[in-house]
Parts: sequence; C-alpha cells; structure tokens
Amino acid sequence: MRKVNRQITLAARPSGFPKVSDFQLIYAPLPSPAAGEVLVRSVYLSLDPYMRATMDEPTRSLAPVALGEVMSGAVVGVVTQSAAPELRVGDVVEGPLGWQEYAVAPVGSLRKLDPRRPPISAALGVLGLSGLTAYFGLLDLGQPRPGETVVVSGAAGAVGTLVGQIAKHHGCYVVGVANSAANVAWLCADLGFNAAFDDTDTPDFDATLAALCPRGIDVYFDNVGGALTDAVIGRLNRGARVVVCGQVSQDNLVLPELGPRWLCQLVAREVKVQGFLVASFATRFPAARQQLTRWLDEGKLVYREDVAQGIEAAPQAFIGMLQGHTQGQQLVHLSEL
Amino acid sequence: MRKVNRQITLAARPSGFPKVSDFQLIYAPLPSPAAGEVLVRSVYLSLDPYMRATMDEPTRSLAPVALGEVMSGAVVGVVTQSAAPELRVGDVVEGPLGWQEYAVAPVGSLRKLDPRRPPISAALGVLGLSGLTAYFGLLDLGQPRPGETVVVSGAAGAVGTLVGQIAKHHGCYVVGVANSAANVAWLCADLGFNAAFDDTDTPDFDATLAALCPRGIDVYFDNVGGALTDAVIGRLNRGARVVVCGQVSQDNLVLPELGPRWLCQLVAREVKVQGFLVASFATRFPAARQQLTRWLDEGKLVYREDVAQGIEAAPQAFIGMLQGHTQGQQLVHLSEL
Repeated sequence: MRKVNRQITLAARPSGFPKVSDFQLIYAPLPSPAAGEVLVRSVYLSLDPYMRATMDEPTRSLAPVALGEVMSGAVVGVVTQSAAPELRVGDVVEGPLGWQEYAVAPVGSLRKLDPRRPPISAALGVLGLSGLTAYFGLLDLGQPRPGETVVVSGAAGAVGTLVGQIAKHHGCYVVGVANSAANVAWLCADLGFNAAFDDTDTPDFDATLAALCPRGIDVYFDNVGGALTDAVIGRLNRGARVVVCGQVSQDNLVLPELGPRWLCQLVAREVKVQGFLVASFATRFPAARQQLTRWLDEGKLVYREDVAQGIEAAPQAFIGMLQGHTQGQQLVHLSEL
Repeated sequence: MRKVNRQITLAARPSGFPKVSDFQLIYAPLPSPAAGEVLVRSVYLSLDPYMRATMDEPTRSLAPVALGEVMSGAVVGVVTQSAAPELRVGDVVEGPLGWQEYAVAPVGSLRKLDPRRPPISAALGVLGLSGLTAYFGLLDLGQPRPGETVVVSGAAGAVGTLVGQIAKHHGCYVVGVANSAANVAWLCADLGFNAAFDDTDTPDFDATLAALCPRGIDVYFDNVGGALTDAVIGRLNRGARVVVCGQVSQDNLVLPELGPRWLCQLVAREVKVQGFLVASFATRFPAARQQLTRWLDEGKLVYREDVAQGIEAAPQAFIGMLQGHTQGQQLVHLSEL
C-alpha cells in the first residue's frame, strides 16, 4: 500500500468558468481509521455539474468547499483497513469521499455494494446521484403521462440520457436537446429518443421546437437554461411542468445574463416550474435504486461513461464536462478494483 | 323599462396599453329571453386585470373577445323578465353578463344571491373572482405556514388586499408592495399588513426587501412582475412558493421586457413557481365562498370598492385600474338595485 494520498483541493474560487489553476494537486500522508471508521482506496470518482456550485462563495443553500480543502464528490472504492465491525477489508463501498485516492470515513456514511453486478461504476451513475436525479426529477416533479411530450436539455449528459429513457418507458414522446450532431445521432439511434436537435447548430429554437413537438410540450426537464429555455417556455401546453435540475449555461457567468421575461406566459397556461435537489428525496433512495436496478437488468437503461485516468486528470475532466464534452457519466478511474 | 341596451364592445385590439378608443359604446335593442332564459338588468359590473388578455389576438389558452363583440365580465343584476321557473322577476343574480346594461342568459349560468347581506357588490369582489383567486392562489398553491413570510405585489388591488389579510389569519408575517404612499399606509393601518412599501418610490428593491423581510421570503404572491419580482426571487428561502397570479407590469408591452435570468436561483433553494387560473378550482367555489363569507361576517376581511358611474365610464375605469389607480375592487355602477 502506498504511503501517500494524492488529493485535489480548491485553490481559488473561480471567477466565471473554472480553470485548471483553480485546483491544486497535493500530497498528503495516508490517514488511519479511528474506531467506527474505515480507510477506503478510491476506484472511481464521479464528476457532476452540481460541483461547480460548491466552488463558489458560501451561500445559504449549498455547502461550499473551503479554500484549501479537498473537492467533494461521490466515490466507489475498496476498504483497505477497517476499525469497524460492519465492514471488512476488501468490501466495496460507495460514499462522499471526495477528489482523492484514499479517504477515511465513518461506516455510517458508506453504502456497501455487491461487487459482482452491475459494474460498480454504475453506483456513481445510473444507480448514483445521476440516476436518482433523473428518477425523482422526472417522475415525482415532471409527472409524465403516457402520450405527453417531454423535452430534455443537456440530453446527452449523465442525467439527461436517463431522463429521456425513463420518459420513454412511461410512454412519452421524447425530444432531446444535445450539443453535437454525434450526440443527437446517439440519442435517437441508441437511446430511443423520438427526436433530438443540436442547440449549438440550430438557428431558430422556436421553429425547431414547433416542428419536433407538434403537440406542444408537457414536461421540460432543464439542465441548461438560457435562450433554449426561453423558447421551450413559449411552447408549453396548459398544465405543463418545468423541472429545473440545472442551468449549466448560466453557472459560469460573472453577471446574470439578460433574457426576455416570460413569467407572464405561465399564468394562463397554469405552468409549474420546480427547482429541486435530489437530496430531499433521500429517504426514498433505496426504493428508487431497486427500480433503476430492475430497469438496468431488463436492458431498459443504456448508459455511457466517459472515464478519465488518474486523480491528476480530474480538474480538466471536470472542466470538459462543464463545457459539454462528456457523453453520459463523467468518471475518473483512480485504481484497479 | 328602457327599450335600449347600452353596451361596450371591443373596437380594436390594443397595441400596448389599451386606449379609450379601443372600446365603443353602442346602442342595441333590448333582447328577450327564450325558454330557460331570463333578462337581467345589470346593477354592478366588475372590472378585473385578467380582462386585458381577453382583448388580445386569440391564443390557445384564453377565450378572446371578438372584434365588435361585447366585452366580457362578471355582473350582479336583477331579473326583469323570466322564461324559466328557477328564477323570478326581482331575483338578484350574479353571472358572466358582460359590459352592458341588460343581458339575456340561461339560468344555468347564473348564481342566485341573497340580496339582504352581505352587500350584493361583494359577490363581485370578496365573494367573487377576486376573493376566490386570493383564496385558492394563496392557500392551495402558496401553502403558507404560521410564522412564514408572505410578500404580495399589487397589494392594494382587489386580490392583493385579500391575499394579505388571509395570510395574516394564517399567522404569517405579511409584506405588501403597493404603488403609492397612501396605499402603503392603508395596508398597514387598516388591513393589518406587517409592513409595506411603495414600488414606485423605492430605489433599491433588494435592500428594502432585506430590511422588511429579515427571515427571507417563503411565499410570493405576484400580481405585478418585472424588476420587483427579480428582487423577490433573490430573497426566497429554501422551499419557497411563488404564485403567479398576474404580471400587470408586462401585460401592456408590445415586446417582452428583458431582465436578468434567475431560473438558476431556483435549483438549490428548491423553489416552486406556479401560474394559475382560478377557473380550475371551480368545483370548490361553493366551499371557498362559505369560508370567505364566514370571515366577512366575523369582520376578518376588510375591503374597498372603487365605483365608477355608468356604462360609458367603464373603459376609462378599466384603463385606470391597469395603471394602478384603483384601491381594492374596481366596479361600475349601472343601475339602482
């Protein structure tokens, strides 16, 4: 076992888009577990859009990472040292262990995985925060009914791919908005989306939405925001639901962008717009994971992982994901199982 | 009985703010009721902000008034001729009879009132669409809990005054936003609002909201929109509810106004924004009217009426209300009971 723990810390709070220099790779001594704790060697680290907000100045709502602290994030790893009867050396676990090669954690913060199947990386994607976010955001808040039209922005991302597939299983007509021709083709050919378009190459969002959503839009699952969202708002049906999962187009702006005010459009169409954090559904995670696992076993959920190699690659992989270069779930592979 | 029916028709669809010339006063022959119908002489006509939308080009969501047709609106009146066993001459009724002195209507579209108490005009205000809008918008969608902070825009209007008072009865801390110093004083002194401010004379909405809402904002009942709403969004607490009843600041714009995009602010705070039409709660109107009548009887709801005289005064009274000159419910008095 190595004696050094390589970690990525927050070196500076980004102004606008994060830069590699906002992160620092540091070498720390390997920690030892106290009673009730275990030492975990990280195998996969998950990189997700919500982490951008943890880099900002403290706000009322999100737990920010302090300057000089290890970046937070979900990890799958192997117990290499145990001071708790609940977990043994060799056990595979998932938990919020951060951007580092090793971590000590109380057993209560870890979830033991079955290492045989599905692949353990799925615990960070389809069966992790991405899957749970898609599940609760779409089903609990979007409440899609068979025959309804569901539009998903950021559709080739970890959450978007799953939202679209789950909506299809609910009998919806699903339109994805992605950021490349390759992703559009992937959504339609492999993931079963009814239609998709590339928002980086679409001159008129309204005309494109009108053509692809002839019966209007009933559910909008928004990961992106901006002018695309303005256009979707204009095509919502009466009683439509807008689920605001993220706004990646806005997360890296120093000043808020201006856009047309559209709140007046919600009144007569009785639209509901709901922002949400998946953590609020935590008590229902086990049941949701069961359902997601069932769909996975039945081949009903296809997923892709974009895997960077080594902790030193995490900052650039994270920035690439924010820039939309990731297909599916962004992971960092840190060691062999 | 007069032989002539004076009516206000829609002469032109307004571009921007309505003008008196968008309306026309015409003289029509008095209609006669067919079987199952009655002839009603109008006593009071209600003028409400939602009517502005009925003047616009047909849309999918709201029933527009056709050019040359009588403007629609709720009326309280007296049956002067009956061809239906359910109603007799002299009965007092409320129904959607439009901007005119007489109307024929099927009995099924009318609601018989007790002419003794409360004053029959209340059927168009506290016990009419304004009261029902305040009741369902605040209680069903805003879901205020005791101790929470409720902000109401357009607080001196027919709906706003009632929203604030009902929120007070629910144990909330209520802040009103009105459009004159006189209205601010009225809300605090007579209606029991905890605080209020004049948005036409407030240089910094954010600082004012911070000062008047030290515990943040849990429910925002919005009748106005625009920069005020942008500022309120920035002060919402986690789990806050925004009820979008109207956006009078935006209704008369030819092109949408630009404002800062704030959808990203809803995510971490899990805010719900809900547009609504009171008509969707129609099956529950009788129960809500009972509750509103009880509060009225107990002196728990204070209201004011702004009464114009004569059908010819309706267009200017309507425009004045849109400009914010009305305190409480705008009515037009058309004949003696």
